[in-house]
Amino acid sequence: MSTDPPRTDVTRLADKQRHDRSTLDQLLDSSRVCHVGVVVDGGPVVLPTAFARDGDRLLLHGSTGSPWMRVVAEGAAISVAVTGLDGIVVARSAFESSLHYRSAVLFGTASPLAGDAKTRALDLLTDALIPGRVSEVRRPTSRELAATLVLALPIERWSLKVSDSWPEDEPDDVAGPAWAGVVPLTETTGVARAAPDLRRGVAVPASVRRMTPRD
Amino acid sequence: MSTDPPRTDVTRLADKQRHDRSTLDQLLDSSRVCHVGVVVDGGPVVLPTAFARDGDRLLLHGSTGSPWMRVVAEGAAISVAVTGLDGIVVARSAFESSLHYRSAVLFGTASPLAGDAKTRALDLLTDALIPGRVSEVRRPTSRELAATLVLALPIERWSLKVSDSWPEDEPDDVAGPAWAGVVPLTETTGVARAAPDLRRGVAVPASVRRMTPRD
Repeated sequence: MSTDPPRTDVTRLADKQRHDRSTLDQLLDSSRVCHVGVVVDGGPVVLPTAFARDGDRLLLHGSTGSPWMRVVAEGAAISVAVTGLDGIVVARSAFESSLHYRSAVLFGTASPLAGDAKTRALDLLTDALIPGRVSEVRRPTSRELAATLVLALPIERWSLKVSDSWPEDEPDDVAGPAWAGVVPLTETTGVARAAPDLRRGVAVPASVRRMTPRD
Repeated sequence: MSTDPPRTDVTRLADKQRHDRSTLDQLLDSSRVCHVGVVVDGGPVVLPTAFARDGDRLLLHGSTGSPWMRVVAEGAAISVAVTGLDGIVVARSAFESSLHYRSAVLFGTASPLAGDAKTRALDLLTDALIPGRVSEVRRPTSRELAATLVLALPIERWSLKVSDSWPEDEPDDVAGPAWAGVVPLTETTGVARAAPDLRRGVAVPASVRRMTPRD
């Protein structure tokens, strides 16, 4: 980077860094999966998992049989990345081509939840995956609760970067023959498919209807 | 998990585990971003980054000014997660509700590339982001090459899990009143938006036309 004008670099990095909780919360609330990093036997392990935000903490859950969840539950430091992709930045040069993204990385240690706090957290995790689903299904059994580990990570140490600018091409490239722009990326839900063993007469519930396109 | 019939657990886990390189390669080739985990100052750090597959190795790149890229380039062990979300599994219970996903985790150390190998890797990274773009833009300058770190991770140690089954509800739940099925998830590209400073008369290139819906 020594050949770059330093001011440009600092400006670019500063442009992307965000410090507002509302932008962080919007990203966390609209994402389905996070990537959790933890050190196991001295080496890094990264695994994807569903999550939910509950105010000032992130809720994670998994099987009590999962070795890495147990390591995290015992208080190992974790790093949690939540990434949203919003577009492909097609610049006039390969060098300036990139992605529009929102990228949060949180750091800390997660604590296991028990009792009512655990049950409430599981409800939040279910409704984060399928909004409104908790009111449509039976309550968890004690066997299911015993098989599930639920962890809470305080949202205290985090960084957030947002890339949402037009291509930043050099003047020579802007004057040249190449096209520049952005191709938007979005996640789309398709038409719900009923399970083959669904009992006849069971209607698609409101939670699923709200998620899927009208046909 | 001790109250579960052990055979069921083993079957479920075994069902999801895959060992075929073709399924791994299909996931790697269709994903835009990976999450790299590395240990920095004794703690885990997870960061998202674009990548490309080149045969039996994964190519990563970033700014030479990025501290974590430098740690990786110096031979730190890394874990790289690549995750594709394909659907929301709406089971008859909260416990069995989950996601359809393809999840690869690779382990190893990455080596910096130089010279022609580096230039070729950058071309592959550009064409992974925007297929066909390399032939439409100018070559990288020596300043751009000097500002970019390109790393190659051998695809040797990896695990792959695929969740693509219908909800696996208990018989009591299947006989009950709740709906079950899958809501498909897909990534969609929108109509390309031209940069505000695009010169008049510059047409949308073939690479971008191929990525975006016809209007």
